[in-house]
Amino acid sequence: MEPTIGDAGEFGVIARVSRRLPQGDAVLLGPGDDAALLAVPAGAVLASTDVLVEGNHFRRDWSTGYDVGRKAAAQNLADIAAMGGRGSALLVGLVAPADLPLRWLDELADGLADEAAVVGASVIGGDTVRGHELTVAVTALGVPDGSAGEHRLVTRAGARPGDVLAVAGWLGWSAAGLALLAAGIGSPRALIEAHRRPEPPYQAGPEAARLGATAMIDTSDGLLADLGHIAAASRVRVDVRAAALRVPSQLRDAAVAVGATTGQHVRVLDWVLTGGEDHALAATFPPGVRLPARWTVIGSVRDCDDEAADGGVGGGLPAVTVDGEAWHGATPGWDHFR
Amino acid sequence: MEPTIGDAGEFGVIARVSRRLPQGDAVLLGPGDDAALLAVPAGAVLASTDVLVEGNHFRRDWSTGYDVGRKAAAQNLADIAAMGGRGSALLVGLVAPADLPLRWLDELADGLADEAAVVGASVIGGDTVRGHELTVAVTALGVPDGSAGEHRLVTRAGARPGDVLAVAGWLGWSAAGLALLAAGIGSPRALIEAHRRPEPPYQAGPEAARLGATAMIDTSDGLLADLGHIAAASRVRVDVRAAALRVPSQLRDAAVAVGATTGQHVRVLDWVLTGGEDHALAATFPPGVRLPARWTVIGSVRDCDDEAADGGVGGGLPAVTVDGEAWHGATPGWDHFR
Repeated sequence: MEPTIGDAGEFGVIARVSRRLPQGDAVLLGPGDDAALLAVPAGAVLASTDVLVEGNHFRRDWSTGYDVGRKAAAQNLADIAAMGGRGSALLVGLVAPADLPLRWLDELADGLADEAAVVGASVIGGDTVRGHELTVAVTALGVPDGSAGEHRLVTRAGARPGDVLAVAGWLGWSAAGLALLAAGIGSPRALIEAHRRPEPPYQAGPEAARLGATAMIDTSDGLLADLGHIAAASRVRVDVRAAALRVPSQLRDAAVAVGATTGQHVRVLDWVLTGGEDHALAATFPPGVRLPARWTVIGSVRDCDDEAADGGVGGGLPAVTVDGEAWHGATPGWDHFR
Repeated sequence: MEPTIGDAGEFGVIARVSRRLPQGDAVLLGPGDDAALLAVPAGAVLASTDVLVEGNHFRRDWSTGYDVGRKAAAQNLADIAAMGGRGSALLVGLVAPADLPLRWLDELADGLADEAAVVGASVIGGDTVRGHELTVAVTALGVPDGSAGEHRLVTRAGARPGDVLAVAGWLGWSAAGLALLAAGIGSPRALIEAHRRPEPPYQAGPEAARLGATAMIDTSDGLLADLGHIAAASRVRVDVRAAALRVPSQLRDAAVAVGATTGQHVRVLDWVLTGGEDHALAATFPPGVRLPARWTVIGSVRDCDDEAADGGVGGGLPAVTVDGEAWHGATPGWDHFR
């Protein structure tokens, strides 16, 4: 029998996992006490929490513990990047059945630590309790861009009519990978790996802050849904230009393959516009900004009442449009309770 | 039918809960964006995570949503106090079934906010996802005592032979309340309330740091088990003097009542020495320290090899003793996987 966390006991688990977690210079006190202490020279700390539940956010037959660790860390660190900040620490609450193999836990810890290391962050604390449903709750801490007293914080609320809309990172890859897994298709690996281990463009976050981004968001729920949050917070309308979206040939090929296998009509733009979990960054910038190569301009910010500019489509438009019109996609974005 | 979180949807839930969470001055950006921003003038932040799972840590028929909120916040904020710090913010990851009444969620939010307010902290962020097992994962952030660059951090590792052992807060009350609930006995209310809503002595934490405490811990798993963590981290032995423990008459009466109802022999000292979830603070201080009234000296720190001083009990003693001897209690302390 493979050893389980029930065999090791709570404190055995803590000791075992702690040994696998390297601690960076900013960690003044690491795991193992009542609380950890993290240096935050900027005088302010960014904080965000995301929860992953087995069956809902991952499947153990599709993702290894290492994959889940990378993904859980990535989606939280992407939230920090989306404020213009840099992740510096993770804390992890784990609910696990007693029969969870210790090997899975080791892999999870390694995945968390490796993804944290991408941005120079450390896993500084956590809690492990027994339950029936395998659950990973991660809190990311980070430092805002800028110096103490003058933080360049990019919220969702600053987009202005006339701004350009740009994205950094992949769109639709995770949805394509998930569709391939569900259809039992094992390739292309790049798309399946993008679902298992998204690669957020962390550095694009602070970069956008320095470039004067007026609003930014991590596209965790799907591009259109997340742009909806910017539109609502900024009280603007956001229009995506479909022709500007980069749709690599392997994404198109995957849509054809999934369609052929499942007998369903798969539109590749549904993946790109509404697929979640890519953790690309979408940001708005003042008109005329010069953007580095990792950013692609994909649309613009309009006034809420600016219907005439859309070719006379008329009233009743949603806050986010594609080529000036409502997008009638397969899924309206991710809602965890519907 | 009572409205549920499934009716409200994820973003409805977020909007609803956010309205119930007052934000203090340290919150530079509150809930609703990718991450919150918290001022940390001391240049360092304490962080701790604890997870509560229904059936394991609470029961909805014994505790209201408000109780669970208070308790989840309290046990995390107590961890911050146990480092000598002051809690400043909470983030909350919630896993909930779609049929969870919105009323329960409102109560949870109110409980979290009210307990946070006791120490001047705010609930600055969270995540709500669907799952079968109601789970509350809380991360507490706090500021260490002292000024920037000179933090008075009290870990578990600084206890020295000759130090005095003292506690602030209640011991055994939560265990007594739980035993009363399990036995179907509805009084005394004070003990049952102590189980539902522990009242950690938050101010005693920074106070201990200023008084020169050499080690400190939040007694979440039971006094002896938690003193075991101090003993291990400090490489010392800790001896509790049973006669020094304050055992109020209502605790003795409750032990008699539970014993009479269940037919089991209930030792009140088992509750005091091994009952968890009171979130009292146990700390060691240099000999000769003058302690304020909220602290009770209950024992002393010995050398690991100091057997002769214990009246010749001899080798094989555990790291934590009661009156110089091993305690043969009903439960050896809380282990979430055994």
